[in-house]
Amino acid sequence: MAPKVITFGEILMRLAAPGHDRLAQANAFNIRYGGGEANVAAALAQMGIPAAHVTVFPDNDLGRAAAATFRQAGVDDGHFMYGPGRMGLYFMETGAGFRPSRIVYDRYGSAFARLNPADFNWDEILASASWLHWTGITPAISAAAAEACGQAIQAARRLGLMVSADVNYRRVLWQYGQKATDVMPPLVAGCDVVVCTQDDAADLFGIQSESFEDMAGQLRQRFPELKTVLATRRESLGASHNRLTGLCYTDEGYGESPTFEINPIVDRIGGGDAFFAGWIYGALQLGNQREALAFAAAASAWKHLVVGDFNLATAVEIQQVVDGDLSGRLLR
Amino acid sequence: MAPKVITFGEILMRLAAPGHDRLAQANAFNIRYGGGEANVAAALAQMGIPAAHVTVFPDNDLGRAAAATFRQAGVDDGHFMYGPGRMGLYFMETGAGFRPSRIVYDRYGSAFARLNPADFNWDEILASASWLHWTGITPAISAAAAEACGQAIQAARRLGLMVSADVNYRRVLWQYGQKATDVMPPLVAGCDVVVCTQDDAADLFGIQSESFEDMAGQLRQRFPELKTVLATRRESLGASHNRLTGLCYTDEGYGESPTFEINPIVDRIGGGDAFFAGWIYGALQLGNQREALAFAAAASAWKHLVVGDFNLATAVEIQQVVDGDLSGRLLR
Amino acid sequence: MAPKVITFGEILMRLAAPGHDRLAQANAFNIRYGGGEANVAAALAQMGIPAAHVTVFPDNDLGRAAAATFRQAGVDDGHFMYGPGRMGLYFMETGAGFRPSRIVYDRYGSAFARLNPADFNWDEILASASWLHWTGITPAISAAAAEACGQAIQAARRLGLMVSADVNYRRVLWQYGQKATDVMPPLVAGCDVVVCTQDDAADLFGIQSESFEDMAGQLRQRFPELKTVLATRRESLGASHNRLTGLCYTDEGYGESPTFEINPIVDRIGGGDAFFAGWIYGALQLGNQREALAFAAAASAWKHLVVGDFNLATAVEIQQVVDGDLSGRLLR
Amino acid sequence: MAPKVITFGEILMRLAAPGHDRLAQANAFNIRYGGGEANVAAALAQMGIPAAHVTVFPDNDLGRAAAATFRQAGVDDGHFMYGPGRMGLYFMETGAGFRPSRIVYDRYGSAFARLNPADFNWDEILASASWLHWTGITPAISAAAAEACGQAIQAARRLGLMVSADVNYRRVLWQYGQKATDVMPPLVAGCDVVVCTQDDAADLFGIQSESFEDMAGQLRQRFPELKTVLATRRESLGASHNRLTGLCYTDEGYGESPTFEINPIVDRIGGGDAFFAGWIYGALQLGNQREALAFAAAASAWKHLVVGDFNLATAVEIQQVVDGDLSGRLLR
Amino acid sequence: MAPKVITFGEILMRLAAPGHDRLAQANAFNIRYGGGEANVAAALAQMGIPAAHVTVFPDNDLGRAAAATFRQAGVDDGHFMYGPGRMGLYFMETGAGFRPSRIVYDRYGSAFARLNPADFNWDEILASASWLHWTGITPAISAAAAEACGQAIQAARRLGLMVSADVNYRRVLWQYGQKATDVMPPLVAGCDVVVCTQDDAADLFGIQSESFEDMAGQLRQRFPELKTVLATRRESLGASHNRLTGLCYTDEGYGESPTFEINPIVDRIGGGDAFFAGWIYGALQLGNQREALAFAAAASAWKHLVVGDFNLATAVEIQQVVDGDLSGRLLR
Amino acid sequence: MAPKVITFGEILMRLAAPGHDRLAQANAFNIRYGGGEANVAAALAQMGIPAAHVTVFPDNDLGRAAAATFRQAGVDDGHFMYGPGRMGLYFMETGAGFRPSRIVYDRYGSAFARLNPADFNWDEILASASWLHWTGITPAISAAAAEACGQAIQAARRLGLMVSADVNYRRVLWQYGQKATDVMPPLVAGCDVVVCTQDDAADLFGIQSESFEDMAGQLRQRFPELKTVLATRRESLGASHNRLTGLCYTDEGYGESPTFEINPIVDRIGGGDAFFAGWIYGALQLGNQREALAFAAAASAWKHLVVGDFNLATAVEIQQVVDGDLSGRLLR
Repeated sequence: MAPKVITFGEILMRLAAPGHDRLAQANAFNIRYGGGEANVAAALAQMGIPAAHVTVFPDNDLGRAAAATFRQAGVDDGHFMYGPGRMGLYFMETGAGFRPSRIVYDRYGSAFARLNPADFNWDEILASASWLHWTGITPAISAAAAEACGQAIQAARRLGLMVSADVNYRRVLWQYGQKATDVMPPLVAGCDVVVCTQDDAADLFGIQSESFEDMAGQLRQRFPELKTVLATRRESLGASHNRLTGLCYTDEGYGESPTFEINPIVDRIGGGDAFFAGWIYGALQLGNQREALAFAAAASAWKHLVVGDFNLATAVEIQQVVDGDLSGRLLR
Repeated sequence: MAPKVITFGEILMRLAAPGHDRLAQANAFNIRYGGGEANVAAALAQMGIPAAHVTVFPDNDLGRAAAATFRQAGVDDGHFMYGPGRMGLYFMETGAGFRPSRIVYDRYGSAFARLNPADFNWDEILASASWLHWTGITPAISAAAAEACGQAIQAARRLGLMVSADVNYRRVLWQYGQKATDVMPPLVAGCDVVVCTQDDAADLFGIQSESFEDMAGQLRQRFPELKTVLATRRESLGASHNRLTGLCYTDEGYGESPTFEINPIVDRIGGGDAFFAGWIYGALQLGNQREALAFAAAASAWKHLVVGDFNLATAVEIQQVVDGDLSGRLLR
Repeated sequence: MAPKVITFGEILMRLAAPGHDRLAQANAFNIRYGGGEANVAAALAQMGIPAAHVTVFPDNDLGRAAAATFRQAGVDDGHFMYGPGRMGLYFMETGAGFRPSRIVYDRYGSAFARLNPADFNWDEILASASWLHWTGITPAISAAAAEACGQAIQAARRLGLMVSADVNYRRVLWQYGQKATDVMPPLVAGCDVVVCTQDDAADLFGIQSESFEDMAGQLRQRFPELKTVLATRRESLGASHNRLTGLCYTDEGYGESPTFEINPIVDRIGGGDAFFAGWIYGALQLGNQREALAFAAAASAWKHLVVGDFNLATAVEIQQVVDGDLSGRLLR
Repeated sequence: MAPKVITFGEILMRLAAPGHDRLAQANAFNIRYGGGEANVAAALAQMGIPAAHVTVFPDNDLGRAAAATFRQAGVDDGHFMYGPGRMGLYFMETGAGFRPSRIVYDRYGSAFARLNPADFNWDEILASASWLHWTGITPAISAAAAEACGQAIQAARRLGLMVSADVNYRRVLWQYGQKATDVMPPLVAGCDVVVCTQDDAADLFGIQSESFEDMAGQLRQRFPELKTVLATRRESLGASHNRLTGLCYTDEGYGESPTFEINPIVDRIGGGDAFFAGWIYGALQLGNQREALAFAAAASAWKHLVVGDFNLATAVEIQQVVDGDLSGRLLR
Repeated sequence: MAPKVITFGEILMRLAAPGHDRLAQANAFNIRYGGGEANVAAALAQMGIPAAHVTVFPDNDLGRAAAATFRQAGVDDGHFMYGPGRMGLYFMETGAGFRPSRIVYDRYGSAFARLNPADFNWDEILASASWLHWTGITPAISAAAAEACGQAIQAARRLGLMVSADVNYRRVLWQYGQKATDVMPPLVAGCDVVVCTQDDAADLFGIQSESFEDMAGQLRQRFPELKTVLATRRESLGASHNRLTGLCYTDEGYGESPTFEINPIVDRIGGGDAFFAGWIYGALQLGNQREALAFAAAASAWKHLVVGDFNLATAVEIQQVVDGDLSGRLLR
Repeated sequence: MAPKVITFGEILMRLAAPGHDRLAQANAFNIRYGGGEANVAAALAQMGIPAAHVTVFPDNDLGRAAAATFRQAGVDDGHFMYGPGRMGLYFMETGAGFRPSRIVYDRYGSAFARLNPADFNWDEILASASWLHWTGITPAISAAAAEACGQAIQAARRLGLMVSADVNYRRVLWQYGQKATDVMPPLVAGCDVVVCTQDDAADLFGIQSESFEDMAGQLRQRFPELKTVLATRRESLGASHNRLTGLCYTDEGYGESPTFEINPIVDRIGGGDAFFAGWIYGALQLGNQREALAFAAAASAWKHLVVGDFNLATAVEIQQVVDGDLSGRLLR
């Protein structure tokens, strides 16, 4: 099947201390692979939506292992490229109760950061697709990545695709000499849908707001193409107990999903990516915004209950949660 | 010591994904063995009640491993038989929060299903025993298993043993051409004690009821030998948090045990079998029905806190919970 | 750096069943090393306080492994000795919910129990230190250990060190022929600070009390050098859910720390030792008793969230909890 | 890339006892997936030859996991189908020295055995390919599988593909009522290349022979389309030490590869499949039969040194062995 | 089945570092249970010979786990007793090549050492048996163990059982005040069959010899009841490569078994016990001394290829090795 | 004890695939830490020679874990520094037979590469030492590292220490703009002892040679301070079977150690470092060059039989091998 959704971004190797071991205490690391955009593609593939990811891996065993992992997850590998540079890594330990989980990044100098924008023929890549998704991490990695991201967005608009982004501003990543406040606005201007927090809006676009609703309204005014602003509200009662609600602001106004209780959290990583995958699924398959938002929030909550960076849940499983089956009763 | 309690039924190999891995994600399966009836025998052995299990294993390494596991648990192996056919299996993944645990069965064509009723000399098997226990899974497996089960019950009655059963109706299992509604009533008619839910009573015996008490009353009328009807009420707050209450209806009327909070659940499987083992222990060792019911419910709750299909708890440990020590304080 | 804090006591090997396996069910044991006094030294080292531990290990691979573990944790090994005798052990299984964790000790005949008091030149050992810490386990192990402990306390007083102890009365340990009620009072008389429960005060010093405050007041009267009496109040809602509060009685009167919720507990062992390490840190680094008590209680709670006998948390991490950050939010 | 090589056959789940544990001793099984034909496709994908596998998986989590594993390995999944039936399994323990490795099969009733030949549009499946590969296991599984296999071979001949087979006669598998001696000859008649042992030739085709060369000559006479007969000679010095030589008989006459010493064997399974994959690679990429045979034998030997059912070696790695680098020196 | 062979001795818990980890490097220990006499019983049970072991375990979880392990292995538990004292332990690391494996014992003060001879009613224990087996470790452990051993031997002779022993002199064990040279001769005098090395004969009985044959002849003269003297000759080419030959001297004169190559060794422990179990099997089931000796040597070699203290091999598997199948070829 | 031997260089984290897994196949990596120079210090510490290592770690959890590992091994941590930059890594898979082990380095941008030479007060660092050891990896890492290395050598000569180096030329490492042929000669000129291969001598110093002896002679002429030239000759019969011989050329002429057979190899890494540690031990503790060389070669061989980057063997254990005990017999 031709991929419907195209995602673009870096994939990292996750090296996680087992159980609740501290990083300095671990004798082994469990290996997973993930990326804010590829996680969306993988989650969509689990839900039966054909999805392809576009990226550059290092041309070594680690890069090939990362590629194989996403192929295993059902992501179309037609635009996996290999280039010079290293595999970006992150090291993780898992907290409990009030002890936070911690991540140590080690991602500079990656093959993705060293990509060549000229290697991407976006018209061909996006030819048969209907949706392009990116996140604010991609333009933060390098000037080349930002340039490629911009070209992808332009091509997508030209070809009439939906364009979505998780704005996801991480100050510490922006180290290649350009400012996020310069780079991000034109990219977001090309989007139909974004996840954006009030803090991100303030930091990147100078939007001061009193509420998500207020911010979303200002953001839509600032970027006329932007129809939908999304976010999640997370109540953190501990590293293993959260409550999650989806927020949404569109032409139909402001909406909130039901709040999902997540206890105990199995793996916190990728919750936001699962939310966006859920929203895309909802936009493509479900009747309306309210249902899509509930589905997105339930998908995000589901992700917290499986191991790995991306969501291993079918659309049916997520819909059962949306429909209120929260008992966790054994299925035989 | 001569076994007091005889159980009869199939033993399966459990292949469980580690931690909370999804089945399709696991790189290894942990191996356990269990069966609804053998689990009762093993739990009784832990509590010091001599128990023997009667079954047929496949005549291969897996069958011998299953047999050895129950011998290790203290179950008398004097009536372990080996025959043609395969080892019945089930694959399991463990949920968390609202994500349910799931089981995939792979049990058709097992050695037990292919048993020969003529191989069982029930008069000899039951000679020195005082109790026979079976479950509704056994007659569901094959016509031969149902026939052997009926012969066992008749012999037990003839020899004056107590007969108990967990009715446990699983529609999907009944595939050999006879109807559960035909097969089960004469078997249940031979019982003194059963665990039966309102749903089971409706499905198997056409008993419509407004409450457990109502159903139990009708059931006793329908089956005159039946003195005691038991059940558990499970409040499922998630895959890792349940509340459990034991229910009982006898000549002395309706009773409820205290409600036990189980959080976090370590292993959900075999909770019902541990309940029945607790009841049998109580009937043999404790003063009255109220104490037996509390013991049975506490035993079932205890099972949720240990790994494996059968309960690894001593009578003293269970009694401490009955007596109200729920603090989980470290014992040095 | 010259060690500021000197601790003295036995180190045991912990052999723990994995996950929630029962001891009789385990196929492997995880190995850790700990001791009530050495755990204090290790925790202090994590917090940047130079600490040395004084002990005798068996002169074999196990003793050397134990020594290396504490060296790895940053504990000064200048006074690690090796002698005849075995490694003291304890076997552990981890409970859940109302199922308690259990410890089986196997520590008699250890190299530490067989120490020779003449081997310790306390004036030299304590030369550049400012604090000596011991616990009531040490004098319980053997007459020789009690004698060495007394000599250490006398030397410490002579040299002007602070002396602290966790009274920690364990009846079953006292088997070498002397009575705890004879041995402990003169040792406690040499202390400035102790952790002591009402039960310990009653059993060891015959102090009957109505409250911690009452007991602490009597204890200070009985032992004039004693300025500070500490304890923790633990509300046990299950093996994996506790609430912990620090208690303190000094010249400034009675104080209580905030109560810390610990859920889920990762590893219960060493909580008391982390409390004492937190108090010593507070006494050396923080402004006042209230801050030190809050820090000690938070340190103890933190310990429950990491694996192993001693606390692997930095002073900054503990202070964040004292400062109210209990959300467990992911730190990137 | 369009697949060049198409393989057709069943994929099984391997459940292997860790290390050298006996099956009855294992506490866990390591999970792998493999099949005599799919292993060829996976090995070819590692060597850069586009390959697709055609099969039917059970429509459950195990089937999807098996599919994902081969997708991960780079096998084209365009003709993975899902149907009713179970996952075929095999249980394995690994010997050492004179102790043999053992396999317990549990594969009856599989989804593949229950395939519907009408579901395969071979003209479309084989459209852009140049090679079809099957083994004698496929027609042994069920009448339906044999029928589909025959249709595939006919279509392949019609479309001008090379057709190859590993004759691989396993008496115990043929249980569906037809005789291998009836079914196999017309299938082999459609082949250009086969692996066949002297025993297989005797059992299946009644060919009595004095040597591989003799047998191969008779086989070519019997089946005029058959140009190439292959085999391996295995000298078994123990479960962990073998010597392997490739044998080949073609128009150019009889040839032998160098003999490769394999010590210690890491994983014996799939050695024959790796041999055939090596031969196909050689036929497509190398200059002549001698080079292809050496490559095939080296590929087979390489497989014994990696874990899993299929060969995880690149063409470069295998060629280095062919070129005589047998030192195993560390590559930095 | 009534046990034919009765063994008497201590069972220890083995704590082994994984893989080739040094003891001081291990993070976990694998748990096994074994004993020089119980290993014989377990091996016999695998070969279908009913065997019971007589011992005293500590009355705690470790003792019960040890008991369960031998029950699992098919050993009759009718004379398992529980008493005060600890579980004897040994710690092990596994060498490779010229690096030796090492054992650190920690067995003093065990429940077995503290047994009460009056607790054993040997006439009843041995009633239906035909063979009693003990080793020189038992009388080395404590005066009480030596006394019980002597009583067992006397009862066995009185009842007409065969009596066998592995003389197995370990100097370091004899620490309870009596001399092996005083204790052992009267015990050996009651034996029909012994394993004895030239060194043991010299140390215990003052027999100087030039060869095994010479020693065996002198030993038979010294102990008139003694008909058969056995030993193994082990050529150690490294920790993972040995050659093993069985030696035997009887009325029929001196004999040697074939030499078995063992490479790689999986687990060296219990090789001697497997030899004796093989001899007993041979004496009970095979035609003559030559066959029994070959079977015993093959059984011992087999043991080196499985994990654990006792031999997990069937009589059929061992006989295949005796019959010359040393290829280790995969059995499907 | 004041350290006698000072080593200087980078420490890397090793991430190794378990067993013989390929890198792209692994689900977890085992964590070890090592470095060509630190491995020498750690091995010396095992042999009772006080040794300190000088290095810069990244100021994060990984750096602290690396530091703790060497502290655990008994290396003096008095000159462990922490600075900006990342942890250097290497990924490893372990071959078997003719399949080579492979390493993927990921070490650029490390904290050590970014060291500031001004941070090292070599006069103080070397004050009480008698030996300085470095390797050719250190000056290859960065200009700063090369500068610090030169300063260390000069200070050592000034203070009268022995200076040794493993020349260890790795072309691919030299990427900071200076040529090894310019940087290395003045550093080697300050050495008393070096390990140098004929290839290294040719590449670095333009010395063409016919034999080790020839090369060593020329090298000594070229560098007048250089008294001793060492090397090992490795015969590689496979990734798990090597033969190793120590070579040495001094005033006393050319010498060879016995050849040690290593089979099976447990862990190949660090064999050269263990050789040098053995030589230093020999130079400090043994009588003459012949004994030192035999000890060095045996130490190197020993290292291949333990897991990890540095040698975990005592001087006694190594001496036993030198003395000819190669049987690997179990030590109780």
